[in-house]
Formats: sequence, structure tokens, C-alpha cells
Amino acid sequence: MEKKRILTGDRPTGKLHIGHLLGSLSNRVKLQYEYDSFIEIANIQALSDNFNNPSKVKDGIIELLCDYYAVGIDFDKANIFIQSEVPQIHEIFIYLANFATVQQIQHNPTIKTEMAQNRYEASTPLGFFFYPIHQAADIFSVNADLVPVGKDQLPMIEDARELGRRFNKTYGVDILGQPEALLGTKINVPGIDGAEKMGKSLNNCIYLSDSQEELKKKVFKVYTDPTRIHADDPGQVEGNVAFTYLDLFSDESQKEEIEDMKRRYREGTIKDIEVKGKLFEVMDVVLKPIRDRRKEAEEMKDELVKKALNSSRVVSSIARETADEMKKAMKIEF
Amino acid sequence: MEKKRILTGDRPTGKLHIGHLLGSLSNRVKLQYEYDSFIEIANIQALSDNFNNPSKVKDGIIELLCDYYAVGIDFDKANIFIQSEVPQIHEIFIYLANFATVQQIQHNPTIKTEMAQNRYEASTPLGFFFYPIHQAADIFSVNADLVPVGKDQLPMIEDARELGRRFNKTYGVDILGQPEALLGTKINVPGIDGAEKMGKSLNNCIYLSDSQEELKKKVFKVYTDPTRIHADDPGQVEGNVAFTYLDLFSDESQKEEIEDMKRRYREGTIKDIEVKGKLFEVMDVVLKPIRDRRKEAEEMKDELVKKALNSSRVVSSIARETADEMKKAMKIEF
Repeated sequence: MEKKRILTGDRPTGKLHIGHLLGSLSNRVKLQYEYDSFIEIANIQALSDNFNNPSKVKDGIIELLCDYYAVGIDFDKANIFIQSEVPQIHEIFIYLANFATVQQIQHNPTIKTEMAQNRYEASTPLGFFFYPIHQAADIFSVNADLVPVGKDQLPMIEDARELGRRFNKTYGVDILGQPEALLGTKINVPGIDGAEKMGKSLNNCIYLSDSQEELKKKVFKVYTDPTRIHADDPGQVEGNVAFTYLDLFSDESQKEEIEDMKRRYREGTIKDIEVKGKLFEVMDVVLKPIRDRRKEAEEMKDELVKKALNSSRVVSSIARETADEMKKAMKIEF
Repeated sequence: MEKKRILTGDRPTGKLHIGHLLGSLSNRVKLQYEYDSFIEIANIQALSDNFNNPSKVKDGIIELLCDYYAVGIDFDKANIFIQSEVPQIHEIFIYLANFATVQQIQHNPTIKTEMAQNRYEASTPLGFFFYPIHQAADIFSVNADLVPVGKDQLPMIEDARELGRRFNKTYGVDILGQPEALLGTKINVPGIDGAEKMGKSLNNCIYLSDSQEELKKKVFKVYTDPTRIHADDPGQVEGNVAFTYLDLFSDESQKEEIEDMKRRYREGTIKDIEVKGKLFEVMDVVLKPIRDRRKEAEEMKDELVKKALNSSRVVSSIARETADEMKKAMKIEF
């Protein structure tokens, strides 16, 4: 039986951090063996809200490629493609646009939230506004069966399915599939400052590209229990980022030791510095090989770009087929 | 000096009538010698409000080609291209979309009017909504210097100019030109029923493809003066479609005779049937050669399509260059 197609991807707007690693990248590495895997570097969508900063998006592509390589994505196994090099996506988008309505986009909860975040209410760039429909075109351009998403992105998948159904029904065809959401276990990785999320603009990230020294510095700055002044004060483990990271990065064999540290922390018989020392050790075990591979990747940037361009050509011809079938359905044939 | 580029075109939603002939086609025939002429068959835009009737749009393409040939458009001189065969237009549209805003489109008077006409207020197809920006992409895809439009379409040209300026300014480039509107003298051709405009849905058209018999039948049905019951009643010339058409279709040498008929009509010394007989004669002089050439065109449909596809390839490569320059400006280069 043919493997199912899965589509994942990122907007190239900066280097990836440990939130991405635990939230999606690790999973993506596993998925590349189970599925026919497509990974999209969505530079056109990144430009839709970064159009006045094209260098950021350009550099972001290289950062992504290096990060992908670093975490173990196999460039010969997964089809890593660059959105701008598959212009058929734009064509498919135009064909889908007749089946989407302005009102449907306005009611999309993701768009609503992002419009507020970007202060776009009075002046919404068109390219930003229609990106949920453009994402549906991404999905159909590779005819993805599965799209790993978070719960908050479910409406986007439902929109794509609905567009596919409407197109098929209108023309009496069965061209566009019904992509399914692949809901993973949500892993929350707080920022080193204790903020709920890690974010570049929050300046609270540990990047996959951070050196060992940077990692150490950041680990020793992580938010613990601000009410604990002395090492013999009883401390709080819940909401303590050091322990959250310890839980996230330790393996089975270390669980016992960490539980013991939590107990001692609560009793006030362990210093913050000892916890953080352990945390650095635990995280470095995971991040060192990634860091090393990232250095390797930086030496072979050109090769990685070349591979991505090759995959883009593969995706281009897949998308061309879909676009041609859609054209035929719309009686555009000569 | 290189000739300026001019872009005109039609949505292929049906055969053309004498309103099109006098309103734009005759002028277009003249323009093809003065300018480097591009004529777009906008089938993708036609589908945006006819997506559930693709046969109409498909057939419309052939009708347009035959009508173009019939009125004397030279397929070897003008670049007659089919929008769907120049997918680079969609790509350019996507690049422009970052510089357009949803609010700007909502305030476009043409869109406002058409939304009301189509009863789209509660449910506006996205493809219809963004078509003014897609039209700007048409213009830039051939880098047109001039676009013949009616006064009501001036905001559309202004939108395109503004998009071009914003794009150029943001990236410090001079890629997109400043297309200018070419305002012609507006020629109003009423419907045969006296309605202000001719329209397929109004069933009041004289088509370029009408046979001589059809022409005669329609001429003898044209709206004259409904208050004039007998041939010796004094009649009204103003608002009398027979005389409007006589003015529009007669040449200098016939003016005197027609003025005399008007005088007699006002006095009540000429029968409607005599006026209409003259009208048929005058119109047939203009429409017979068009009709004959249209028959010729129908015999060579395949050849006309082939020529349009060839021109589409030419336009494709022009548009590819523009799209590539835009990509370079946005730092999308590998």
C-alpha cells in the first residue's frame, strides 16, 4: 500500500528554538519514516506579514534548512520545498478562491486573533487576509492526506476540506481530497522567563543554534521560584521552568533522580544552582548532537538549498498535475 | 522609439453586440496599429462570478475570438491572449496582494456596485472580491503603459498605480510602471427595447453574429416613440432608438438624408416602417462585412485558438520576467 502523504512546514521568520523541537520537529523526524513526507518552507506566506523585511525571510530559509538538518530531518527522505518555487500553489489558490467567501475568512478564529495581534483591523493587507485559503492551496498542491496541527488550527483544516468538497461537487469531480488533521499531544514549552510561550520577540528562547556557552548562560537564568530567597526556603516546583524543562528533556533513567530533586526543592534542601547544573547537563545531552549537526549544516548550506530546490521541482510537477485537473474540471482546456 | 503597450480585453461570457462594437471594438482596431497591443480574454475573472457555469465561459472564448476576427482585429498584430494560459498573472497577483488592503477593496465603487448587483453582501466569493487587484496583476503582467477604460473604471487604474508605487517604494526598485487610463469618448448604445444599455440578460441586443434576417427582425422591433399611434402623428426623435442607431451607424454622406427624416418624423410625414427600412439598410452596410468575416472565423476556429495560445506563450514569458524581477526585489532568489 502506498504511504499516506503528510504536509508540515514553517514560516521562515527566524531560527527555531526548543519549543519547536519538542512541539513539532521531533515528531516530524518520526513521521518522515511512516509517511510520504512534505515539508514546506512557506516564504510567500511569511512575506505576507513581513513584506517590508524581505531579508528576514530570506535568511530565515537558510536557518530553517540548517535547523531541519540539525534535528535529523532526512533531506533525501522528506520533500523539503520552498513555497515560492512552486508557483502552481498560487494558481490553485485562485481556483479555490471562487469557493471561499470573504465572510468565512472574517469569521475564522485564527485570522481574528492574528488581526488583533497585528493591529490590522483598520488596514488589513489582502495577502494576510486570504492566507487561510492560500494554506488550503498548499495542502491541495501536494494532495496531502494528513496535516499535523494544533487544536487551534482545526478550523483551517475544516476550511480546506469544505473548499475541496465545494470544488468537487460543483464540477462533479473527485480531484481534491479530504485532508485530515493529525492532532499531536500538545507540549507546552514555556520561555526561560516563565512566560507561557517561547517567542523570538519575547527574547526568552533557547535556540537550537545556541552555543554551549549560550545554553549554559540561559539555563542559569531560567525562571524558578521567585519567592524563594535562600537555598533552605521551601520552593515551588509547579510553574518552575527549571523543573518543567527537566521533565521535558530527561529520559526514563533520570526520572528518579529528578523526582528526588523536586522533593528536596520543596523541602528547601537543594540550591537553585544545583538544579540548574543538572538541567544544563540534561539539556546538553539532547542539544549537543543537534548543535553539532547544525554546524555541519552550516558548512553545507549550498547543498541543502540545492536539495530543497530539487524537491521544489518535484512538488511543482505534482502541483501542476492537480492544477491541470482543476482546469479541466473548469473546462479550461485547449 | 518603441511603441507604447496597450492592454484591453473582455470577459468571455457571451457573444459581443453592437454596443461593444461602437464602445470599444472599433477603437481597438484602430489602436492595434498605433500601439503594441495586448488583448486579454479574461476567462479566470469570468469564472469568478460564473464558476458554476464553466461551459458558458469556455464557449465565450470561441465567441470572443470569432468576434475579434470579425471586426478586424489582426491576430498577427495584436497579442490576443487567454488569461488562464498565463498563470504568472496569479503569481504577480500574490506579490501585489501584500500592498492592497481589504478596506481599500471594500471602498472601491465598482466592487460596491457589483456586490449589490450580484447580491453578494452577505456572502462574497473571495475570487470576486479581489478581482480589482487581480486586474492590476493583468496590467503589470504585460507592463502596459495604457489601459483604455470608461470613467467608472478610473479607480481601478488608480489602484493599480498605487500598488505599483508601493511595491517599487518598499523594495527601492523601479519594476512596476505607472499605467495610464486612456479615456475614450463614451458612446451610449441603448438596447433595442429603449433600455439605457444593451445586455445579454436584458434580451435587447443586436449581436455581431446575428444573421441578416435576425438583424432585420430586431431592427423592425426597435423602440421608437410609443405615443405615436398613426404615421401622421408628430413623433419624437429624442430617445427614439431608431434615430439613435441611425446617428451611430450612418456615415457623413447620409447625414443630410437622416436629418430630413428626423424633420419629417417630427412633422408626422413619415411612417415608422420607412425609418426602420432605412435603419436596416444603414446598419447592414456596417454589419454585413463583419457578419461575413465572422462566418469565415467560424470556419477557422482552431487556427484562431492556436494563434491565441501562441500569443499566450509570448505574454507568459513577458510576465515571467516581471514576476522574476519582483521575486528578486523581494529577495526571493536562489
